[in-house]
Amino acid sequence: MQTLNKGNNVVIGDNVKLGENVTIGNNVVIYNGVEVGDYCIIQDNVVIGKQPTRAKASILPDSKELPPTIIGKGVTIGTSSIVYANAVISDEVFIADLATVRERVTIGARTIVGRGAAVENDCTVGSNCKLETNCYITAYSEIGNYVFIAPCVVTTNDNFMARSKERYDKFKGVTIKDGGRIGANSTILPGKVIEEDGAVAAGSTVTKDVNKEEIVVGSPARRLREVPSDQLLRNQ
Amino acid sequence: MQTLNKGNNVVIGDNVKLGENVTIGNNVVIYNGVEVGDYCIIQDNVVIGKQPTRAKASILPDSKELPPTIIGKGVTIGTSSIVYANAVISDEVFIADLATVRERVTIGARTIVGRGAAVENDCTVGSNCKLETNCYITAYSEIGNYVFIAPCVVTTNDNFMARSKERYDKFKGVTIKDGGRIGANSTILPGKVIEEDGAVAAGSTVTKDVNKEEIVVGSPARRLREVPSDQLLRNQ
Amino acid sequence: MQTLNKGNNVVIGDNVKLGENVTIGNNVVIYNGVEVGDYCIIQDNVVIGKQPTRAKASILPDSKELPPTIIGKGVTIGTSSIVYANAVISDEVFIADLATVRERVTIGARTIVGRGAAVENDCTVGSNCKLETNCYITAYSEIGNYVFIAPCVVTTNDNFMARSKERYDKFKGVTIKDGGRIGANSTILPGKVIEEDGAVAAGSTVTKDVNKEEIVVGSPARRLREVPSDQLLRNQ
Repeated sequence: MQTLNKGNNVVIGDNVKLGENVTIGNNVVIYNGVEVGDYCIIQDNVVIGKQPTRAKASILPDSKELPPTIIGKGVTIGTSSIVYANAVISDEVFIADLATVRERVTIGARTIVGRGAAVENDCTVGSNCKLETNCYITAYSEIGNYVFIAPCVVTTNDNFMARSKERYDKFKGVTIKDGGRIGANSTILPGKVIEEDGAVAAGSTVTKDVNKEEIVVGSPARRLREVPSDQLLRNQ
Repeated sequence: MQTLNKGNNVVIGDNVKLGENVTIGNNVVIYNGVEVGDYCIIQDNVVIGKQPTRAKASILPDSKELPPTIIGKGVTIGTSSIVYANAVISDEVFIADLATVRERVTIGARTIVGRGAAVENDCTVGSNCKLETNCYITAYSEIGNYVFIAPCVVTTNDNFMARSKERYDKFKGVTIKDGGRIGANSTILPGKVIEEDGAVAAGSTVTKDVNKEEIVVGSPARRLREVPSDQLLRNQ
Repeated sequence: MQTLNKGNNVVIGDNVKLGENVTIGNNVVIYNGVEVGDYCIIQDNVVIGKQPTRAKASILPDSKELPPTIIGKGVTIGTSSIVYANAVISDEVFIADLATVRERVTIGARTIVGRGAAVENDCTVGSNCKLETNCYITAYSEIGNYVFIAPCVVTTNDNFMARSKERYDKFKGVTIKDGGRIGANSTILPGKVIEEDGAVAAGSTVTKDVNKEEIVVGSPARRLREVPSDQLLRNQ
């Protein structure tokens, strides 16, 4: 038995699989082959399963038709958000309004993707994370579990700022290990690693790796002190 | 007599009250009970009256169905913007494209909410303010009258970055009093107060309160000088 | 012969000219008189040719109906993006999702406008540029060719932060000359000029002009060194 609560003007492609008790808002577009788990809520104007379109000037290789998007159970996808093909969204993920999740992204269970957040292609995001409003997760990043990324954090992956052939094999996203926390409006340079429970104060620019359980601050960010014991992941 | 100029594929819920000479674009969704004043312009793809959806992992208490959204007279709501339930938008407010205004927000008359701006839940914004493009107003903030918030300003409300039980009763938005001005891409830490006519230079990180009629700059922001007399609110 | 691949619920105004082999997604709105070149891809929820709406509190002069938008050949316009009236988008431009391009903007051939980027009114952008995710290009800016603007860069045009009558004839956007490059989350103050091949490190605040082939860093940004020879535009 499938109970579907569906708004107006919904476009659903071929071979889309909808679980039980799925709610779909108005003007939603779901492309071919997408799988949506039980009890998902897909809000107005959402687009799921979009194939990437390459700019003719893009340096990235052309891609064939990607496999479909897989959405777990109890997932919410907020108004006007866009989830690309070949993204895997785990159970109980909450994606707020106007967010984008690109192709080949995996998002772990119960993670929150904030309003306007952009998770670029080929990222792995763990479970129980909070990626807050308007944060920007650059392509090829790896984010562990219980990671907190404050509003408007910016990450980068190209030290060469789009110049010099040397860069082509040196794109490198950021790595934020379990329990890492990045303060609001901070900038993380390409390839930097935030170790377990490492923390970055708001407004900082991170130019080198952040040690385990260490707080850094400033531009460039320098060690401030240890993370207070009551804020360590293992003490929650 | 009601003259309604309505686009295609508009979805209007039960008990919606539309004033005279309202213009509604294409693909607009207006939820139950919303009140829209005379001479409002609601542009394409706008959603008004959306009930908040809680992430299962959210720390915030669950909420019942909220009262409807109230939109005053002569309000413009730009393309793809989202106004939640229980928001009160006063006369002649201008909301640009792709903005979000959350539940229990009040916005005073003639205030401009810029393109992509996000006003989170439970904020109070006065009249004649300019909240510019992509600025982020954290939940529980209080903004006076004639406040200027430049593009891409970031405000925060959680000093504990989502860790430690101590934080639960310490969420605190920012307070910007009448005539306060925040420069582009600045970051304001939780609970900070910008007093009347206080100003923050672009790119600063505000870690302590800003005095009346004082300009601060840097990260952390320090006093630069008095606000020039011809820029004080009382001299306009 | 015109082959048109068109989604559901598309609204097309009067006198719209569509080239050959144009693809139009679902829920697209194209206003009167827009011209779209051959082989363009217009994705779901896009709005093209929107006339600007003035806030009653706006300081800008009221405008008459603007001339239509002109879109060249082979242009892609991403999901939920908005292109205003009187914008001119050259051949093979790629506009990603959720971007906005305002009235009287010209964008040169093969330029990429990133996801969520905002190009405000009256800007000129050259060819082969990359304006990355969420960057904010303030009104009246001039951007040359082969310019790189990293994610979340913020530019400004009002030194007076909306106060003092003196400002009315002093709005000034930024100028970034050919080959200029701006690092992620940097802030550029009003009227500043980045000369040819000048570069700004990530997270900087630019308070004075940047010389040709010079890298600056910090807040306020100071000279770091020459741009490495292999990163100069003439050596690509």
